[in-house]
Order: sequence, then structure tokens, then C-alpha cells
Amino acid sequence: MNRPLSRPDAAGAIAALGSLLGDRASTATAIRDHHARDESHHAAHLPDIVVFPETIEEIAEIARIATLHRIALVPFGAGTGLEGGAIPAFGGISIDSSRLDRILEIRPDDMIARVEAGVRRQTLNATLRDTGLFFPVDPGADASIGGMVGTGASGTNAVRFGVMRENVLGLTVVTADGKVIRTGGLARKSSAGYDLTRLFVGSEGTLGIVAEVTLRLHPIPDATSAVAGFPTLAAAVATVTDIKRAGIPIGRVELVDDSLVAVIERHSPLGLDALPTLYFEFHGTPHEISAISETVEEIVADHGGTNFRWMRGAEETRKFWETRRLALAWAKQERPASVSWPSDVCVPISKLAEVILATKADIATSSVPAHIVGHVGDGNFHCVFMLDPANPAEEAEVARLNDRIVARAIAAGGTSTGEHGVGLGKRAWIETEHGADALEVMRAVKAALDPFGLLNPGKIFPALPEDDQTDHPSPTSIRGNIPPCV
Amino acid sequence: MNRPLSRPDAAGAIAALGSLLGDRASTATAIRDHHARDESHHAAHLPDIVVFPETIEEIAEIARIATLHRIALVPFGAGTGLEGGAIPAFGGISIDSSRLDRILEIRPDDMIARVEAGVRRQTLNATLRDTGLFFPVDPGADASIGGMVGTGASGTNAVRFGVMRENVLGLTVVTADGKVIRTGGLARKSSAGYDLTRLFVGSEGTLGIVAEVTLRLHPIPDATSAVAGFPTLAAAVATVTDIKRAGIPIGRVELVDDSLVAVIERHSPLGLDALPTLYFEFHGTPHEISAISETVEEIVADHGGTNFRWMRGAEETRKFWETRRLALAWAKQERPASVSWPSDVCVPISKLAEVILATKADIATSSVPAHIVGHVGDGNFHCVFMLDPANPAEEAEVARLNDRIVARAIAAGGTSTGEHGVGLGKRAWIETEHGADALEVMRAVKAALDPFGLLNPGKIFPALPEDDQTDHPSPTSIRGNIPPCV
Repeated sequence: MNRPLSRPDAAGAIAALGSLLGDRASTATAIRDHHARDESHHAAHLPDIVVFPETIEEIAEIARIATLHRIALVPFGAGTGLEGGAIPAFGGISIDSSRLDRILEIRPDDMIARVEAGVRRQTLNATLRDTGLFFPVDPGADASIGGMVGTGASGTNAVRFGVMRENVLGLTVVTADGKVIRTGGLARKSSAGYDLTRLFVGSEGTLGIVAEVTLRLHPIPDATSAVAGFPTLAAAVATVTDIKRAGIPIGRVELVDDSLVAVIERHSPLGLDALPTLYFEFHGTPHEISAISETVEEIVADHGGTNFRWMRGAEETRKFWETRRLALAWAKQERPASVSWPSDVCVPISKLAEVILATKADIATSSVPAHIVGHVGDGNFHCVFMLDPANPAEEAEVARLNDRIVARAIAAGGTSTGEHGVGLGKRAWIETEHGADALEVMRAVKAALDPFGLLNPGKIFPALPEDDQTDHPSPTSIRGNIPPCV
Repeated sequence: MNRPLSRPDAAGAIAALGSLLGDRASTATAIRDHHARDESHHAAHLPDIVVFPETIEEIAEIARIATLHRIALVPFGAGTGLEGGAIPAFGGISIDSSRLDRILEIRPDDMIARVEAGVRRQTLNATLRDTGLFFPVDPGADASIGGMVGTGASGTNAVRFGVMRENVLGLTVVTADGKVIRTGGLARKSSAGYDLTRLFVGSEGTLGIVAEVTLRLHPIPDATSAVAGFPTLAAAVATVTDIKRAGIPIGRVELVDDSLVAVIERHSPLGLDALPTLYFEFHGTPHEISAISETVEEIVADHGGTNFRWMRGAEETRKFWETRRLALAWAKQERPASVSWPSDVCVPISKLAEVILATKADIATSSVPAHIVGHVGDGNFHCVFMLDPANPAEEAEVARLNDRIVARAIAAGGTSTGEHGVGLGKRAWIETEHGADALEVMRAVKAALDPFGLLNPGKIFPALPEDDQTDHPSPTSIRGNIPPCV
């Protein structure tokens, strides 16, 4: 079920899609090429055709055409993925959601929005601004909501508001055979049968095509930010643990390692020492912040934190967080023509310090520069390598170190991917992480919902021996990517 | 797939289970009778045998025996369910988790506990007390954690901490064919493949037998409670909406209708007027509470709230919440020999006031007394009828009104069950709520994981025409139940 049946009838599908969609079905090379890649280091692979549906009914008809012609169907959102989830590894139809960009309904009293899959998260939040509400999941990139559903995205403020699974109330999904189903609903909770919503969230388009999404919204919080440096990574992590256990309403807490702090100081100086550093955001009115500030400062001091500083005012806060957002891009600039390869493991917080320390030791042995940033409130961190794509030895080295990072995370009870998804990059680890029997259950679910294996084949599941191997990136095929938002 | 294959070999299964478990496999009438029922109004149905496994390996062997002999396998936790989920509607094996009662691991820094399925939630919280952490999901009853997983439980403080789906990090599950799989893990988030954890949560034992559960814990909050009466139900609900949209950290908010306030005042007077009343709990230090108190009091006053009062001290707070907990038991006492039948719908909050008002109008037409309580922060409420089990006309009347309540909730975009599960009682509504095609996807998942239909047959899915109908309660078979904790 990991691949489409043999001999897809691409020509038949292309003809049928042209009849259905006219110039919204394209085989132009430039358009196919744009849909052959995402922002990851994974090798591009061209789809046979790209389609731009505007309605659910069109998606359903596209799915029926794919089934009739036994051709792969691969959803494409904003193309901001970091593990190759949208790359049509077996060719076929790339189904682009950019024309499904309507915000269908905003219900302020219910704190709910219903959107089409192609709506970008920043567009949604701009539209919501006057309501005092926002959609909190923030993977950095201006991803499409449908793509974020597929990947099971999260980001810096998941520690406060949860990940996509906690913020998607319902979906409209087109099944492999072209049926339209609605999962979940407008109620904030339900015990009515199987939770299909959360089965589709994170399924990377392998179980159905997401057409509409019902989202939970949250009141825009009052927020105050702060920063501190720590003598060791362990001290920084221990600070996070203590703040969380004290029940302090933390909105974000981001670890930036010493080498990346040095990059920031070279590009947009904040006066930080080159130490493991925490970027904090706390939620509450100024009155509430003043009520917690003493406790926060005590915990930071207990762990040897220095240079602790509250940000004052909107402009200082904006500039402060901008350094976090741009730091990896600056690091990439410092190595011209490099491409970035981010790991994405998540471990229990009690293991986070030792896992990060071991990762730092790995970096120290590497000829490829790398930096660590982490959504440490969740135990999630990224070790981001900046490698020379012209040097196969560097790719081999990064692949080796990335494998060590993933193996270490799984051994610590963690996961190979906290928020980027399995895509092409973590397939080799999925059995190690979940075990053969759990993987078999996933395969059974996949076979039940996609019996012909047409939905985003080659993703999530490890390649079977008989699979076509064309989806494996070759060492020389890494593209010059843009820096990932992680 | 809604029922076991014909001709289960009960005798063969009983012999094999006796060999495996000795006196922990029982066909004694008293024990079978105890496992024939839960706390709902649904008709009892005897299992053929009750087993008390002590290890996962025993559960796996029991599953293999059930499969070999094509006999139903039905999990039984604390027996506190309210929709018949644990009733062996087709006989077979009742698998009792009471000897799977070990708290396996508490990881305070990770804010995680790992427990066997039979651990009761109050036992867990008593064990956790010294850590400053607790497991927040509180359905009222001292349910087993495994049962709460099966039902997808929630309760009064879900508005703050979420429901079971948000608080279960991972599971160990025995599949129908006796394999042991582990889902999720110790990381607080993951995007590594299908979310099997949340597929099993709320699946009511129809996809696998839950053996172990990894839970998220939370810091025990500082809390302050308050109460106010409102001129109308709509004013009470509007107050909740405004408090939530203001981002005030609400821990619980419970609606108690005027008739139930009158009951409370007859049994444990709080000096409340017989008005729609909100019981509040806010989270924060005394300093933080003082920072929000003015806003709360203003919102309450804006909606005509009267008799607003902050609870002072632990004893007053304890007694206050005890009235909420015992109110329905007192109401039941006021009608001797009655049994209770709670509805359990959940609707978008913008529809809550009109749906509750229509329900009040239904109650006014009914000869059966009923009261409304609601976890209104989530849009979830219960209309609890106290009916005379000796009077079939009353059961018919309640069934008719319950149907109206469910139909109204679904029409409002809500759900037939916010937290009690489908069990036997909501099967007739599942297709109306989700649609035929989504139900077909659920059936496909069920068939993939339980091809012989042995796991808790007769639950969740509507009965098929060819099904044995013995699981339908007859009007005269209602048992004298104890009052539900809702």
C-alpha cells in the first residue's frame, strides 16, 4: 500500500483533468517544477500534472479520475514543508490548494473559524485581528492551513496553545474514491465515535485530501517577553522545567544555543553573552506579569541565569523576536551557498538536557557548521546543519549525524519528528519508533482508506523492497533551499 | 463488523480461559451479573465469563482465545459508564481491569504518569499529591483510567485542561489478534505517522483492549471559586462567553438550573436564589485573582448577575462544590425509587442558550421531573430526567424528549454525546451526526482492526438489520441505578 499500482494511466488522467479543469490543469514544465519540491533538502520529483481545484466537488472528481486511472494524488499547499511531504515521489497529480483560499466563516462567540485548505495562516490572523482572537499554531513559515493539518504542525507557542491536533475541531475530507466526508464539528468536544479528525491530522495526505478545516481560536493574549543567558544547556533546561511546574503561564520559551547567539550578535546586537539563552514570553496583563515576575527571576537566578532582562514596549519586543526568527537565515548567510538540513526530534523534558548536550558533542566533531534552536517547553529542538551542496562528503556526514540524533531521541522515549512530519526523511525510522506491530496497524488503516495506494505514495511508510526507488534523493540532487523556519 | 460471527464457541473459550487464569476466570452468576451492567438505564446483559488478567501477556492470550473461539471480548473498568459501553450486549468475555491497578511510573519533571488501565483516577491523584501535580480529567465518578480512555471522558474542568484526547500521550493496546502495540510515547508532541493514540481514545473497546496509559499531568493550580445567579439562562451563558473571550483563566464554570438550585437550597443551603446559577473556579495566585476579580465582577453585573460571591477559605469552597457534586443525588432522593437518565449533548457556545431554553420548554411539557446542569464553558450540558422505572409511559416520554434534545443539538452543529460516549444509547444517532460516508470510513477502520467483529460488538455503530436484537433494552428492564455523576 506504500505505492500506486503498477502502470498508472497518466495520459488518460491528463486528458480527463484537462476536460474537467481547462487551464487549471497544467502540464507546463515551470508549473510542474514548482510542485516538484518543498523547502527541504530532499530531491525534487516532477508530477505528471498540476491541478488547481476551486471547489470540493472538483477535488472529488479529481480523486475519482485518479482512482480510475490508478495514478498518484499528492496534495500541495504553500510548499513550505521541511521533509518532502508534498514532493510527488511517484509522479502523478499534484493537487494545489492555492485557489481554495476562502475564509468561510468566523464565529467569534464560538471562537471558531472555518476555512478552505489553501488559506494561509497569516492571512487568517490578519482577517481575525479585529475580533481580538487569533489562530495560535505558528510553524514560522506562512504555511497553508491544509498543509499544517497534513504535517501535524506546531511551533513556538505550542507549549501554551497546543499543536494542530488540539486546534482542529473538524475537517471536510475527500476520500480516495471521491466521497466527501465531514469529521468533528462545531462542538468543542465530542465522544461520538472514532476521532477521524485526529486520524487525518498528521496523515500527510495519505488517507484523504483535506478540503476544509474548522479551527479553534484563542483570545490574543497580553504578553511580556524576557531573555536570560545560562552557564550551561542543562541549567537553561532546568529553568524551563521549574517554570512549567510552578504553573506560570508561559506563552513561548525558545532555546538558542551559544553559537547562534553569537550569530545574532553579529547581525542585530541585543547585548547578549554567547551563552545558551532562553527567549521567554509570558502571558497576562501587566498586573498579572508583575505578580509572577519575582518568581520567574528567582527561578532564573537559582539556575545561574545572567543578564536577565524584560523587554519594554512593542518595538523592543518585536525586534527581540525578530532575531529568533531570522537567526537561522543569518547563520546560513555566514556560509554562502549552503543549504540547511534541520533535525526535528522531541524528547521527554527530563532527557532534553542530556540529549542536547550529546548533540552539541556531535556538532563539535563535524566539519559542517550547525546550530541548535528549541521549542524547549515541549522538549522539541532542531539541530540545523548548514551544508555545502556541492560536497557529497558533507551530505553523508550530516545524514550520519542526523541519524545519531534521531536514534538518540527514540532511545530517550522521544520521537523522530516533533512537528515536521515523516515525509520522505523519517520513513526509515518509523518502524524503530513505533514497532512493527503498531506500524502494521497503521498500514491496515491506510489500506482500508486507500486500497489502491494512490494517496501521496511513498510517504510515512518505509519503502518496501519491491518499491520503485526513484524517490530516494541522490547525494548530488540537493537543491539550494531557503532557510527553514523552525 | 458490528457483531461477532455466528456461533461463538463459548464452551471452548470458557475451558481455555479457565486453564489460563484459574480462579481469575469466573462463570459465577454473581460475578457475571456485576459485569452485566453499568450505571446507566440500559438493560443488563450477562457475559458468558468474566476474566481478571494481571498482565499484558494475559490480555494478549485472552484476545487470542476470543479470536480462536469467535467470541465477543468486552472491556470492563469501574462500571461507572452512563451509556452501556461496558454491557456485553452479545455475551462473551467481560475483561475486568481491576487487577491491572499498578501505577507504573511517575515522572515529575516530565509531568507524566504511566498507569495500568484499571487504576482509578482518585487513586492516581492521591498518589500524585506530594508532587504538586495532578491528572485533571474529572468525570465525577471514580472511573478507571482505561474506562476514561474508552469513553473519551471529560468533566467539569475540561474547559481549562482539555479532555482525555488532550491528556493521553500514549497507550499500550492489545489488538484483536493478540498483538501488543505501543502508541505515542513520552514526548509531548509528535508528527510521526498516524495518531493511533487518539484513534483508540473514545473507541469504547471496539478497536483494541487498552492495557496501559501514559498521561499528561498538570501543576495543581491555586484556585478561587465564586457563584452568581442570573435573570435568564441566556444571561448566564453570555457571561461565560464574555469571560472566555476576555482570556480570563477559568478553571471550571458550571451551570445549575433554577430547579436544581432549589433542590440544593433544600438540602445544603448556600443562600442562593432559585435562578440559573453559575459555579465558577478561577485559577491563579491570590495576587492574580485580585487582578482579574474586577473584570469578572463587571462582566457578571453587565449581564444582570446578582448575589455574586467569592468563596472564602478551603472549607467554604469544599462545601460549595459538594453541592454541585451531590445535587443530582438529592434531586433523585426527592423522587423515591426513581432512576436517572442523563442526556449529554454539546453544542457551539453561540447556540447554547437557545438549545438549553428549548430543553427547558421540553421539560415544562413533561410529567417526568428533570434538571439541567452544564459544563457550559465547553457547550456541554446534561438534562437529567428522574423517571419511575415501573412506569413504561415515563420511559417512553423520556426517550422521546431525549431524542428531541439530541436532534436539536445535531441541528445546531453539535454532538449527540459530549463525554459519555455512544455505547448503546447513541448508536441510533451516529449516522445522523456524521453522515453515511463518514460512518462508512469508521466501519472500514473497525473492519481493518477487528475483522471478526469480536471487540465490544453492538457498540458505537447502529445495529444492522440482521443483527441479534437482544441488546436493545426493553421498557421494563431498567435497573435501579445510582445517580450519575455528570
